[in-house]
Amino acid sequence: MTAPTVEELANGIRSGERRSLARAITLVESSNADHRRKANRLLDLLTSEAGDTPSPPTVRLGVSGTPGVGKSSVIDRLGMHLIQQGHRPAVLAIDPSSVRSGGSILGDKTRMHQLIQRPEAFVRPTANRGRLGGVSRSTRHVIELVEAAGHDVVIVETVGVGQSETAVDQLTDLFLLLLAPGGGDDLQGIKGGVIELVDLLVINKADGERRPEAERTAQEYRSALSLTRPKHPGRPAKVMTCSAVDNVGIDDLWSVAQDRWNELLDAGVLDRRRSEQRRLALWRDVEDLLLSALLHDHGVERFGHLERAVIDKERSAASAAQEIADQLIGGR
Amino acid sequence: MTAPTVEELANGIRSGERRSLARAITLVESSNADHRRKANRLLDLLTSEAGDTPSPPTVRLGVSGTPGVGKSSVIDRLGMHLIQQGHRPAVLAIDPSSVRSGGSILGDKTRMHQLIQRPEAFVRPTANRGRLGGVSRSTRHVIELVEAAGHDVVIVETVGVGQSETAVDQLTDLFLLLLAPGGGDDLQGIKGGVIELVDLLVINKADGERRPEAERTAQEYRSALSLTRPKHPGRPAKVMTCSAVDNVGIDDLWSVAQDRWNELLDAGVLDRRRSEQRRLALWRDVEDLLLSALLHDHGVERFGHLERAVIDKERSAASAAQEIADQLIGGR
Repeated sequence: MTAPTVEELANGIRSGERRSLARAITLVESSNADHRRKANRLLDLLTSEAGDTPSPPTVRLGVSGTPGVGKSSVIDRLGMHLIQQGHRPAVLAIDPSSVRSGGSILGDKTRMHQLIQRPEAFVRPTANRGRLGGVSRSTRHVIELVEAAGHDVVIVETVGVGQSETAVDQLTDLFLLLLAPGGGDDLQGIKGGVIELVDLLVINKADGERRPEAERTAQEYRSALSLTRPKHPGRPAKVMTCSAVDNVGIDDLWSVAQDRWNELLDAGVLDRRRSEQRRLALWRDVEDLLLSALLHDHGVERFGHLERAVIDKERSAASAAQEIADQLIGGR
Repeated sequence: MTAPTVEELANGIRSGERRSLARAITLVESSNADHRRKANRLLDLLTSEAGDTPSPPTVRLGVSGTPGVGKSSVIDRLGMHLIQQGHRPAVLAIDPSSVRSGGSILGDKTRMHQLIQRPEAFVRPTANRGRLGGVSRSTRHVIELVEAAGHDVVIVETVGVGQSETAVDQLTDLFLLLLAPGGGDDLQGIKGGVIELVDLLVINKADGERRPEAERTAQEYRSALSLTRPKHPGRPAKVMTCSAVDNVGIDDLWSVAQDRWNELLDAGVLDRRRSEQRRLALWRDVEDLLLSALLHDHGVERFGHLERAVIDKERSAASAAQEIADQLIGGR
């Protein structure tokens, strides 16, 4: 069996063939140079065609929360609600926690048991290969692929504190932070900067006897948020509760998210945001490619004497790095 | 008042003048190009001199744990114990959580109330300016400076999940993870990869009525760790308890850390590890410098047309990045 051409893949993706989409994602996630080149041509083709026939923009929603807060259950319910509304959701996951092992704690997508059975939905964990930067890069390309395949709401899920939320925020339009009922410690845990990325703060597990506590927690966060600088001037984050178990509040969640998204679209914020995201993605890609080339081929060859001097403590890493950078970008 | 020369700074640092050390750290953390150049010459000078007169290597200890676990109290006690043993500890902090705000939740070092009053100790929070990579880079240089100033045990503290622990592990010899008594959730929270970095796992708050729970937690982690791949083959992580409040177990903690460190030194592991850390630091520095140069000066000038094409969706970020990287490193 011969590999499909870039044009065949692009056609397959646009006609909604899962197999073409899966093949394209494999290409985009590959570190093989030939695969990468082919992936680039595919992405170029899909990008320029999308530019020719502008369709209504997709909604890109980042979802984060600590383990155990119920991310998968909420996303499962939200995805089903989206399908009922005529959407075709895609769920992608970024896992920053397993840098050394290469494993993925989000690999087990069986928790989204309803969604994975639906032909309208696409659910894909992203393997982590060494660097958060690399993960969010390939996730960005996967977003482009699933959108080309007709998925109009893309949910990017992450776990963790700090860096991964920032990465997801740079990939998405809206950021939803999921929390469990209960106060002080959580508020303490997120205050460092993540809160400034949040559009929607949702307290899950507002069910049974935990419901009053969830409402109280929501109220606490409303007060706390009124003291912080909102992500978008004049548009403070919304705080609400839901229960994935009872399937309560998921429709409200989507309706609030949609309102916020429409506001951003109408104000031109969304357009500027996505332009800036593309610009940053370009330079982060360049950074990744340079580092990988330097570490694996050109660098050791061309700058081996400097590397040796640093290892042998004859030079500081700082000044050797400056010398290499100066040579690479033409000095100053 | 004229600024001191690089030689004056180096002399000041070596004779233990805090003011010279503080000035040098400011240089190293500066993003100003002239400061950077001066910092590089200083680091080169200190590096090559250290190479000429090899002193017994310093101990670099990474300490991590979620907020509220008692990191500052444990480090305060440990620092005082080190001083009693004739050491001169330095404590540096990496704060990954505040990427967008530029603030630092570790800024409040007054919690190490004993240590900051001692002339033998040096305590310094590291401001976070935008990127975890940048922070760990300047922290690496600050480690070199405090060691040149005679601090023989350097404690690098971080909070967070995943990425920051990896950064700290790449800066240090030993990694100590601090946990609170209590089971399941914590174990769940750290299992993703951080556990594979750990040399010492210490349950704090083993005091009063929480002591039995702390011991039970330690036992649970001993069992759990026996199922994981140890950081160094044949050297499983040690699990122990302590109480910063009662000042109990801190001496044991240091004695276990020292034994582990000596083992690694004798086996040649430490030497190989530090060589590899220097090598990686070089290329990460190169990466940072290139990205910053590309984003701020050269890039926009030289590759402005490609940037524009990506923003306007005429090209994919992936393929434009490849074109830029190819041009920068001479293509292939």
